[in-house]
Amino acid sequence: MPQTDAAALTADLIRCPSVTPEEGGALVLLESRLAAAGFDCTRADRGDTANLFARWGAKGHARTFGFNGHTDVVPVGDAAAWTVDPFGAETRDGVLYGRGATDMKSGVAAFAAAAIDFVQDTPPDGAIILAITGDEEGDATDGTVALLDYMEGAQERMAACLVGEPTCPETMGEMIKIGRRGSMTAWFTVTGVQGHSAYPHRARNPLPAMARLMDRLASHDLDQGTDHFDPSTLAIVTIDTGNPATNVIPAECRAAVNIRFNDTHSGQSLTNWLQAEADRVAEAFGVTVAMKVKISGESFLTPPGALSDLVAQAVQAETGVTPELSTTGGTSDARFIKDHCPVVEFGLVGKTMHQVDERVEVAQIHQLKRIYSRILADYFV
Amino acid sequence: MPQTDAAALTADLIRCPSVTPEEGGALVLLESRLAAAGFDCTRADRGDTANLFARWGAKGHARTFGFNGHTDVVPVGDAAAWTVDPFGAETRDGVLYGRGATDMKSGVAAFAAAAIDFVQDTPPDGAIILAITGDEEGDATDGTVALLDYMEGAQERMAACLVGEPTCPETMGEMIKIGRRGSMTAWFTVTGVQGHSAYPHRARNPLPAMARLMDRLASHDLDQGTDHFDPSTLAIVTIDTGNPATNVIPAECRAAVNIRFNDTHSGQSLTNWLQAEADRVAEAFGVTVAMKVKISGESFLTPPGALSDLVAQAVQAETGVTPELSTTGGTSDARFIKDHCPVVEFGLVGKTMHQVDERVEVAQIHQLKRIYSRILADYFV
Repeated sequence: MPQTDAAALTADLIRCPSVTPEEGGALVLLESRLAAAGFDCTRADRGDTANLFARWGAKGHARTFGFNGHTDVVPVGDAAAWTVDPFGAETRDGVLYGRGATDMKSGVAAFAAAAIDFVQDTPPDGAIILAITGDEEGDATDGTVALLDYMEGAQERMAACLVGEPTCPETMGEMIKIGRRGSMTAWFTVTGVQGHSAYPHRARNPLPAMARLMDRLASHDLDQGTDHFDPSTLAIVTIDTGNPATNVIPAECRAAVNIRFNDTHSGQSLTNWLQAEADRVAEAFGVTVAMKVKISGESFLTPPGALSDLVAQAVQAETGVTPELSTTGGTSDARFIKDHCPVVEFGLVGKTMHQVDERVEVAQIHQLKRIYSRILADYFV
Repeated sequence: MPQTDAAALTADLIRCPSVTPEEGGALVLLESRLAAAGFDCTRADRGDTANLFARWGAKGHARTFGFNGHTDVVPVGDAAAWTVDPFGAETRDGVLYGRGATDMKSGVAAFAAAAIDFVQDTPPDGAIILAITGDEEGDATDGTVALLDYMEGAQERMAACLVGEPTCPETMGEMIKIGRRGSMTAWFTVTGVQGHSAYPHRARNPLPAMARLMDRLASHDLDQGTDHFDPSTLAIVTIDTGNPATNVIPAECRAAVNIRFNDTHSGQSLTNWLQAEADRVAEAFGVTVAMKVKISGESFLTPPGALSDLVAQAVQAETGVTPELSTTGGTSDARFIKDHCPVVEFGLVGKTMHQVDERVEVAQIHQLKRIYSRILADYFV
């Protein structure tokens, strides 16, 4: 059978202007290619978000390998600063340019091409699922979550899943993500009583309370790290009052902190800690401290084992590089999948993601497809 | 001799629209009235500011009593909210309305009327100086300071001085000011290195340093008060960052503190303390802390004694109220005069100063003139 050209497929996907939440033709294209190769395809759209579920092989098979990725891309940004058409998929000197070139149309093309060729060349005793969303870069509320909800309702199940996000900081093959830290933001508003700077005893200044609260939060060591995670971190990101008058004590001050946390904590345990600190300061200073929390994702870990070994061996075989098993970085849709099955992430070098002139070496797309192909071959041995 | 009507003179002054820095005819009017009564008058103008120096009696006399005040007024503010013409000097039910009615055209009129009548009725063996400025409400750089510079150059000297600012919070006669706390403001800018909230070790967050600095400053007891002063106070008045992105560690944060300080401190000693605290935090957190300081006025005290006794006895005799000797409140031009001679402040009830429908009871203007007259009589006994 003719092999599927992952680079050509990446270029075709780049030409689909699928800026979140636009489908842009990307999922339609993938559906037609996968259906032609014998995949059962279902659109699991929800709200404004388009999602594609595709399965080759028997539903419910115990050996079902999954791939997850997204076709939506972040906006072009400063269009004038691009040296190419962001949706033109131009290749220069072996480098393919365009929005989504690394994040992550190349990753989707590589695993789709690998899966198509694999099931045609060596049909396995098992199943392959591709769960591809059109909203990873946005709110992500109707993206991979909707795909997982669909799968739950349709009794579709992956035994293991690989997310094809770019994971390598500098060199192809150097990093597999086996988990992610959690992320949460807390907003504080301290309210006192306004007054004149000359008569502070007649006012109730919220600022000393805020300074104390922020000092306590920033000074606290959340933990010392765990076997697979760096220490959790808390960053004060803003403190604001907006009082231009030096003879006025203001009534209110606002601040926000962002926490990246490992598996020592949960969003709830940290919320409890923050609330206790807020309450303590409110009591000590006689002010009101209101807190609002948003938990973007809990931390998770797929402990080193069968899945990470499978991926690491394929990476090593194709690149000669021994990948680090890491939990660094921001969040990804793996945070949703971890409740469904073991999940790891491996993909390209992400250096130009979200930037002007986003680009990828064509050779690396082919290399990534070979890695994904080897993973499938080894999984279904 | 016919007595000078201090209320009528107040009304005449109110009709002069002398909003800082406009002379508005107020000092011209006073000069003509004082010159007619035998005062040597000199305009000690500087820059855009008009100032009037007037002396009755021999220059350089050891017994020279001085009055200080200002004819400039703050702007009308919300003109539509006034129920009278702010410069109309309308009297209703024994109350005189207009901008400057309490702060402090009535005070100037009362001491000018008292001085005019006193030197005509009972010419003393001594001298009386009236130092009246057209800029107390503005920058005050060319106001009473220019008058004092003029006096220095002309070898004019007061042995004691009364500032006729409104000093009584609620009831006529209840408070004499024998000093004032100093006032200063310090602005801090903490600069670090911007970065991503997920990688705080690659950034240098200025906010924990600012929180620590503000906590240390606000927690510090400057002193426990002195015989005549309340404890010094420090108020954080603002902390600002302006960072809307919770995934970004900002590069810079700004804050300001306002200090009202007693005679335990000086602007310089506090500047040294603030700088040491800023340096300590900069060192501990590896950030830059820039500090800018403005000293609005040093603290000063005219210790209870001959001058305050003189004024207190006159107040007691005319009102039946025993005045408190206080150092509370903001700053006044007494902060400049204290380097020239002993100075105290006594005047009307200041409740409506700077407000819409500023007003004064006509009877209180007459009462204030009687108090000032008695002070002169007792001083020159």
